[in-house]
Amino acid sequence: MLQKVRIVGSGLIGTSIGLGLVQRGISVQMVDSDSSAQALARDLVGGVEVTSPELVILALPTSKLPLVIEGEVQLNPHSTFMDVGSVKNEVLLQVQTFSGLSTRFLPTHPMAGREIGGAASARADLFQGRSWILTPDQECSDESKSLVLELIHHLGATPIELPADAHDAAVARISHLPQVAASLVAKQLSGTPAEWMELAGQGLRDTTRIAGSDENLWKEIIYSNRAEISELLINLQNDLTAMINSLDDPSKIAELIAAGRDGKALIPGKHGGKAREYSYLPIVIDDKPGQLAAIFNECAAMEVNVEDLSIEHSPGQLSALITLSLSAQDAEKLSNHLTSIGWNVHPVRK
Amino acid sequence: MLQKVRIVGSGLIGTSIGLGLVQRGISVQMVDSDSSAQALARDLVGGVEVTSPELVILALPTSKLPLVIEGEVQLNPHSTFMDVGSVKNEVLLQVQTFSGLSTRFLPTHPMAGREIGGAASARADLFQGRSWILTPDQECSDESKSLVLELIHHLGATPIELPADAHDAAVARISHLPQVAASLVAKQLSGTPAEWMELAGQGLRDTTRIAGSDENLWKEIIYSNRAEISELLINLQNDLTAMINSLDDPSKIAELIAAGRDGKALIPGKHGGKAREYSYLPIVIDDKPGQLAAIFNECAAMEVNVEDLSIEHSPGQLSALITLSLSAQDAEKLSNHLTSIGWNVHPVRK
Repeated sequence: MLQKVRIVGSGLIGTSIGLGLVQRGISVQMVDSDSSAQALARDLVGGVEVTSPELVILALPTSKLPLVIEGEVQLNPHSTFMDVGSVKNEVLLQVQTFSGLSTRFLPTHPMAGREIGGAASARADLFQGRSWILTPDQECSDESKSLVLELIHHLGATPIELPADAHDAAVARISHLPQVAASLVAKQLSGTPAEWMELAGQGLRDTTRIAGSDENLWKEIIYSNRAEISELLINLQNDLTAMINSLDDPSKIAELIAAGRDGKALIPGKHGGKAREYSYLPIVIDDKPGQLAAIFNECAAMEVNVEDLSIEHSPGQLSALITLSLSAQDAEKLSNHLTSIGWNVHPVRK
Repeated sequence: MLQKVRIVGSGLIGTSIGLGLVQRGISVQMVDSDSSAQALARDLVGGVEVTSPELVILALPTSKLPLVIEGEVQLNPHSTFMDVGSVKNEVLLQVQTFSGLSTRFLPTHPMAGREIGGAASARADLFQGRSWILTPDQECSDESKSLVLELIHHLGATPIELPADAHDAAVARISHLPQVAASLVAKQLSGTPAEWMELAGQGLRDTTRIAGSDENLWKEIIYSNRAEISELLINLQNDLTAMINSLDDPSKIAELIAAGRDGKALIPGKHGGKAREYSYLPIVIDDKPGQLAAIFNECAAMEVNVEDLSIEHSPGQLSALITLSLSAQDAEKLSNHLTSIGWNVHPVRK
């Protein structure tokens, strides 16, 4: 049973784990080679000393594992170890260089993070409802695995077991490739006149949102998973070449755009299910406090469940367009109701 | 003064213009070479016949302009003409082949659209608060220009005048490049196992959202603006090559990611201003009706203005994380208030 945990690394992930565990009554010692980071983490999480922890969490960049792993293994000869890095094959390889460590080391990857890092951004609920991937070696003991599962349970995450190879290939596709693409598209904006940028719409904003990420975090991730990423980038480059060579041929352009639509359709919808078809209900409101509350009061009164919402303010306008995502049935019910009491609703005609 | 308008083309844009104008008391005749599209548009907009219209709007793909323009010019020898296509240089070139037409033809581009097309998706408010770009030739008469400005005013849009060259270069960067990139990134998802896709997060969803667009619309746009787009795609390809060649060098990877962050920072925030720094206030709620209403009631009571909102449901969980975007001051005020009455608020520590 998990009672004492040592967390090596006081960044966003390590400190968030510490905060979550302390809320569940577990003793946590925060450790960091940077004494000011360690002091901040201890202020946030609490300052206890822990001896003979059941679990040691290495919450630092994978490139720094070699600096601490030997000392930590000697210091904690009976503990289970886990890491939390974004790439898993190289961690398994590092672990295999230590005799006997494979039975009690479990590489893991919590699918959670924020665009801002550091202990100061940590949140006890960072992992709530997120997936947490485990990529255990065959030699990993059941005891070690159950300790890690207990940790994941405490933090409200959902454990998913995958081979390390599959993990690295999966995150290359669903996370690392989009990051590189978003960054490189955003890079093309350099030097664009401000008056052109004023015309930017939601498409550009969405496509480049993650380009705001931290380059120091991402250089590590991309470097560590370069084998998988390289292949994907080369495929993307080939398709880009195909597009460039097809610019004189509308039917070939259409084929490439259609292939993208087919790829996008593979992304599951919310609640982990298949992509759901929502109905969208656009409503024009005054851009002032109270309007959203009034609408959501009507939603509650009608017992409709809002799946998502976007708000679009227009340059130089005092009105805003909000678009609710609802089931088709809820959309119709709400649309009729809001219209009947005078709201400016614009249901999509079928 | 605008009293009679003839709209040639009964798709999303043409029919939306028709709906908007009829609401303002203007007589509109909808025309389409496809008789069923024309019938639907007339059902929606109204079925009047118009003679000697002050304004003829060519609301069809630019590639179809040559099919109708000569007949329309002969039929309406005194009318002002405008089109609504996404690319403007080629329209100017077409117009210049008709002697005398340049004085009464104004190429325009409303910055509005939807991922779904057709008259059935039309909305009278489609242009409300949007930018509407005009790219008049030097020869365009003041009278023609004022008729088009009157139309834009009726539809609630904001006119912006740009040279046609600048327009085409601007939309290539802020709209066409992101579309191609999103489509090609989404194309790479083809063949990905469903269990990997289940791990997809918001980053992938945002980066590929517009990949769901219609290939027949986009093949026209990309083809028409191929000169501008080609240059941008080649630049992107060079940067992609640089990334592929830098995968063994973390510092070069970091440089490319940082350049993307700098590019993204050029995108203005809402209300057409410079990118504003919002504070984000995450709140964990039960995923059921009434929760959002309760929160927005508190927002209204505290007089805070919600700039944006995202809702994140987690696979297999019955809670949801909503994140409000607010001014720093409003975020602090609301956070303190919600916490004091028992909400599960997770303010970002500074």
